[in-house]
Amino acid sequence: MATESSAIVIDGKSVAKQIREEIAVEIARMREATGIVPGLAVILVGDRKDSATYVRNKKKACDGVGINSFEVNLPGDTTEQEVLNSITKFNEDPSVHGILVQLPLPKHMNEEKILNAVGIEKDVDGFHPLNIGRLAMRGREPLFVPCTPKGCIELLHRYGIQIKGKKAVVIGRSNIVGMPAALLLQREDATVTIVHSRTNNPEDIIRDADIIISAVGQANMVRGSWIKPGAVIIDVGINPVEDPESPRGYRLVGDVCYEEVVKVASAVTPVPGGVGPMTIAMLLSNTLSSAKRMHNFN
Amino acid sequence: MATESSAIVIDGKSVAKQIREEIAVEIARMREATGIVPGLAVILVGDRKDSATYVRNKKKACDGVGINSFEVNLPGDTTEQEVLNSITKFNEDPSVHGILVQLPLPKHMNEEKILNAVGIEKDVDGFHPLNIGRLAMRGREPLFVPCTPKGCIELLHRYGIQIKGKKAVVIGRSNIVGMPAALLLQREDATVTIVHSRTNNPEDIIRDADIIISAVGQANMVRGSWIKPGAVIIDVGINPVEDPESPRGYRLVGDVCYEEVVKVASAVTPVPGGVGPMTIAMLLSNTLSSAKRMHNFN
Repeated sequence: MATESSAIVIDGKSVAKQIREEIAVEIARMREATGIVPGLAVILVGDRKDSATYVRNKKKACDGVGINSFEVNLPGDTTEQEVLNSITKFNEDPSVHGILVQLPLPKHMNEEKILNAVGIEKDVDGFHPLNIGRLAMRGREPLFVPCTPKGCIELLHRYGIQIKGKKAVVIGRSNIVGMPAALLLQREDATVTIVHSRTNNPEDIIRDADIIISAVGQANMVRGSWIKPGAVIIDVGINPVEDPESPRGYRLVGDVCYEEVVKVASAVTPVPGGVGPMTIAMLLSNTLSSAKRMHNFN
Repeated sequence: MATESSAIVIDGKSVAKQIREEIAVEIARMREATGIVPGLAVILVGDRKDSATYVRNKKKACDGVGINSFEVNLPGDTTEQEVLNSITKFNEDPSVHGILVQLPLPKHMNEEKILNAVGIEKDVDGFHPLNIGRLAMRGREPLFVPCTPKGCIELLHRYGIQIKGKKAVVIGRSNIVGMPAALLLQREDATVTIVHSRTNNPEDIIRDADIIISAVGQANMVRGSWIKPGAVIIDVGINPVEDPESPRGYRLVGDVCYEEVVKVASAVTPVPGGVGPMTIAMLLSNTLSSAKRMHNFN
């Protein structure tokens, strides 16, 4: 059946697969040359089902490319000190090149304190303020770039979408996506505006953008009428909406009303299958980079 | 003589004077209660006349409010190690609460390495990437905010200009002014766009702004026609332009064409006498805060 849609669908699933293959080749090359295998340690506290699923998917992805994975599961009522002890152990372990603390942590823990304990040279999540500071500063280089925003930019690169000189709008200003995505676009010479919950008439600003990265977590918030014809849209949102026809009773949609924007935009990421698969691919990429850097392997 | 101008002239000189008086009162209160006097150390390398003038002005400002000032002058051909030694000495000296390395450094020195050597708790310039990272992140607090952008925001506060929900444009993305100014406006819930040398048609973006902070160093670049009626303009630029009528042969002007924008804006900082005096006032404020924090004095 013919549709009105004209936008290129940015296939994150296929790009992520390609990146994982490239990483696997690099890891094999490194192992052969040096005997060293990159290692990623994941610390999971509590028994949230979604967190357990994310951790399992990360482990599977590590296996797929040849990264050793290490896992610590601590009960939800564990002390902060026990979490810090696990981090210290991994900080000191030379076979670990990346450490990831699965968020959210139980409420009784100080997230800032725990994340700051991860050695900056193993902070593959890129959330350490020292990394964020370097990301913000011209002439400085972060050791790691946070995975989801890095995945967004990588999609733009792999689809040959020019960033330099373009107007970009980032919707949402979270520490893990919106803010670092804005800093990355800025580093690539876009003119960047961050739109957030206190912005008046966000649609007027969004309508001016050549590139839109949305990371707010509101289903179908961005409408087709908000989009400049020909804009490129990267949709980071993954929002469950009720769907009686789905076996689970819900389906996942983005922040962007896909059916509407696909008729206006020049390129758009679907949900699922857009940014989602890129996040883990970038985590693997950061872990490989870390191992290369620690062992001076190029 | 009547003029067409309608904008309030934001009197940075007078605000800075008031802030210095407030600081002097606080320093006297602290000294009486604890016997402790805040101390600021300045390291000057080489014999640039402008740098020597800045350092002299800082010393004078310290004297004026009761801050002890310490100064090290090193020759232009000194080694990086000697500069680092001076920093270490001040890092360890409990009578020093703020350390400032006067920029620019001679070309043979690694500025990043030297600035990073300043202890984060004495980094009154606020240029350490850890401070910048915290400034960028929601829910984190920098120990210090860079002086010039802090001075810009302070002017807005003291003139009762609302920031929350407003559209703000920062012109220029330097590490010392533009970028941190944008992060500060963002923290105060403005919707912020950074305009820079790679921005196409910057005037169209600037014309949309309720608040403009300009820090590019181009004389009279921002014209009256670029300004939305009623906008507020903070002009950080200090640019010499030829002026045969001036005894020095030049005069100082801002990035903004003052004579034009004063007819359109609702408020504007003059050059000189706008942001300029605020920078040193904020340096004194940061030094006082540092001493208070180190000695748990509120």
